[in-house]
Amino acid sequence: MDANFREKLTTPVVERVLIIGMGLIGSSIARAVKARGVVGELIACDHSTGVCARVRELEIADDVTNDASAAAARADVIIFAAPVGANEQLAREIGAHIRPGAIVSDTGSVKGDVIAAIEPHLPGGVHLVPAHPVAGTEYSGPDAGFATLFNNRWCILTPPAGTDETAIATMRSFWEALGSNIEIMSAEHHDLVLAITSHVPHLIAYNIVGTADDLEAVTQSEVIKFSAGGFRDFTRIAASDPTMWRDVFLHNKAAVLEMLGRFTEDLIALQRQIRHNDGDGLFELFTRTRAIRRSIIEQGQETAAPDFGRQDHDVKLQE
Amino acid sequence: MDANFREKLTTPVVERVLIIGMGLIGSSIARAVKARGVVGELIACDHSTGVCARVRELEIADDVTNDASAAAARADVIIFAAPVGANEQLAREIGAHIRPGAIVSDTGSVKGDVIAAIEPHLPGGVHLVPAHPVAGTEYSGPDAGFATLFNNRWCILTPPAGTDETAIATMRSFWEALGSNIEIMSAEHHDLVLAITSHVPHLIAYNIVGTADDLEAVTQSEVIKFSAGGFRDFTRIAASDPTMWRDVFLHNKAAVLEMLGRFTEDLIALQRQIRHNDGDGLFELFTRTRAIRRSIIEQGQETAAPDFGRQDHDVKLQE
Repeated sequence: MDANFREKLTTPVVERVLIIGMGLIGSSIARAVKARGVVGELIACDHSTGVCARVRELEIADDVTNDASAAAARADVIIFAAPVGANEQLAREIGAHIRPGAIVSDTGSVKGDVIAAIEPHLPGGVHLVPAHPVAGTEYSGPDAGFATLFNNRWCILTPPAGTDETAIATMRSFWEALGSNIEIMSAEHHDLVLAITSHVPHLIAYNIVGTADDLEAVTQSEVIKFSAGGFRDFTRIAASDPTMWRDVFLHNKAAVLEMLGRFTEDLIALQRQIRHNDGDGLFELFTRTRAIRRSIIEQGQETAAPDFGRQDHDVKLQE
Repeated sequence: MDANFREKLTTPVVERVLIIGMGLIGSSIARAVKARGVVGELIACDHSTGVCARVRELEIADDVTNDASAAAARADVIIFAAPVGANEQLAREIGAHIRPGAIVSDTGSVKGDVIAAIEPHLPGGVHLVPAHPVAGTEYSGPDAGFATLFNNRWCILTPPAGTDETAIATMRSFWEALGSNIEIMSAEHHDLVLAITSHVPHLIAYNIVGTADDLEAVTQSEVIKFSAGGFRDFTRIAASDPTMWRDVFLHNKAAVLEMLGRFTEDLIALQRQIRHNDGDGLFELFTRTRAIRRSIIEQGQETAAPDFGRQDHDVKLQE
């Protein structure tokens, strides 16, 4: 963690922020803004009364409500942090209550469809600055969040052409205050980039875990027992929140199908190399992919520590 | 780590063991047997003089040589721990030197082809007890090994029908002394189980990293930057040793192609669900896969700790 992140701000970036949806991401934002003094007042909203009660217990927001419209009327920045499939209904419900000059943002893993769902319901003078913090774990719910989740991670902003520059600058400052690095791109490009770096990886992880579960020749108990050979890592990704991911695939359909097509084409070529004993072709690919891993570690998106499913690596043996 | 593993044995399980191939697995065995007193004398062999020199520096073997035949003539147990593609040549070279009554074993991720490569070259009275410790990291070479790698991991033995029971019992005791749990099955079944739990997962990880590397619409720099969304985890697997994995695919071709066929069939069905907006179908799969993850954690093949690419999770914020 860099030193900057540890210091508390002296002046808040935004006066009053409303987060709608207090799962892993929403509750992590709440913890981070509170820890750093990024906002004057934080209002947390969730449609579940159980989640609201838990957020009150956790004391990670100044105010907790399940009345999104009333809260929206008071906020300077409104962040949609529910699964992306909920956005349209939510925007329809609260849109008319949002004050002119307020900023509407979100945290969705999909951007084109999110803009299409929210923008039509916003009154004139409300600024839409969609955001995607590229961070997360396989856990969900308000207890899963933590304040450092966004630190040294990328947050992509995809403001539609013509968006107010001050509104963009505010959201940039907001995410920078949470420790994130900012990238600005079009929603369309975002959806393509994330299809390959996130959506298709999740899809194939879900798929292979499903395939293994369906086999007759290999029992489920064998799959679990011998998962340390690689399968284990896929199950982690395939344990991510089902609602969130269903919505991602339904709302980024075109880009996912495009990237999945490329993946399948390449996989069929690889299958052919195996069938024809093309060891050199396999070796060439396996060497090339190793170099990419190295770049990811060098750029701090991953630690170099070996991962083998437990943390007793350093336990010393008694001599 | 369980308490048993920490104690040193009072009597060695085997008098003299030769390990051929001192990479991640071979050097981990060496460290583990030394730490626990599992063998009377450990001879390490590698065809690379550089590796031999490094093993001498690390002081993880009693004797280090690159003359496999001479060492084989002295050993009670000979463990082939080089990439599986090297086995046939190696068996041909050292076979005639092995003493009657000795046990030949290995650590390969493939078993049917390994038996076919080694068995014809063994003199009468030599016992073949193939083994596959299902453990590893994405690193390779003698420096990557560590003594606890096999602790609480499965080791699968695949003795051909009619193998001497005492020889099987010796290899069982050997691996149990390294902390492993033992499962015995046929080589054919092993190759099917590992195809789905290890080989196909590696193949699709290599494949998606390759696909991402080949795109024109998304730059490599973007792929690396935004890898935290899921792609990162695949690059770890796709950083595994190219030679070892080339050999695995070439030597477990039938089972890999069979399981890959199932995977592709399922993927195409999933693609169709996305195309036809079948949210319920996606949700059903994503919920089912989550349950498998839970079982893996319950059975100790993985920790429940969230993984998000760095280890500063618990670093406290200054208030």
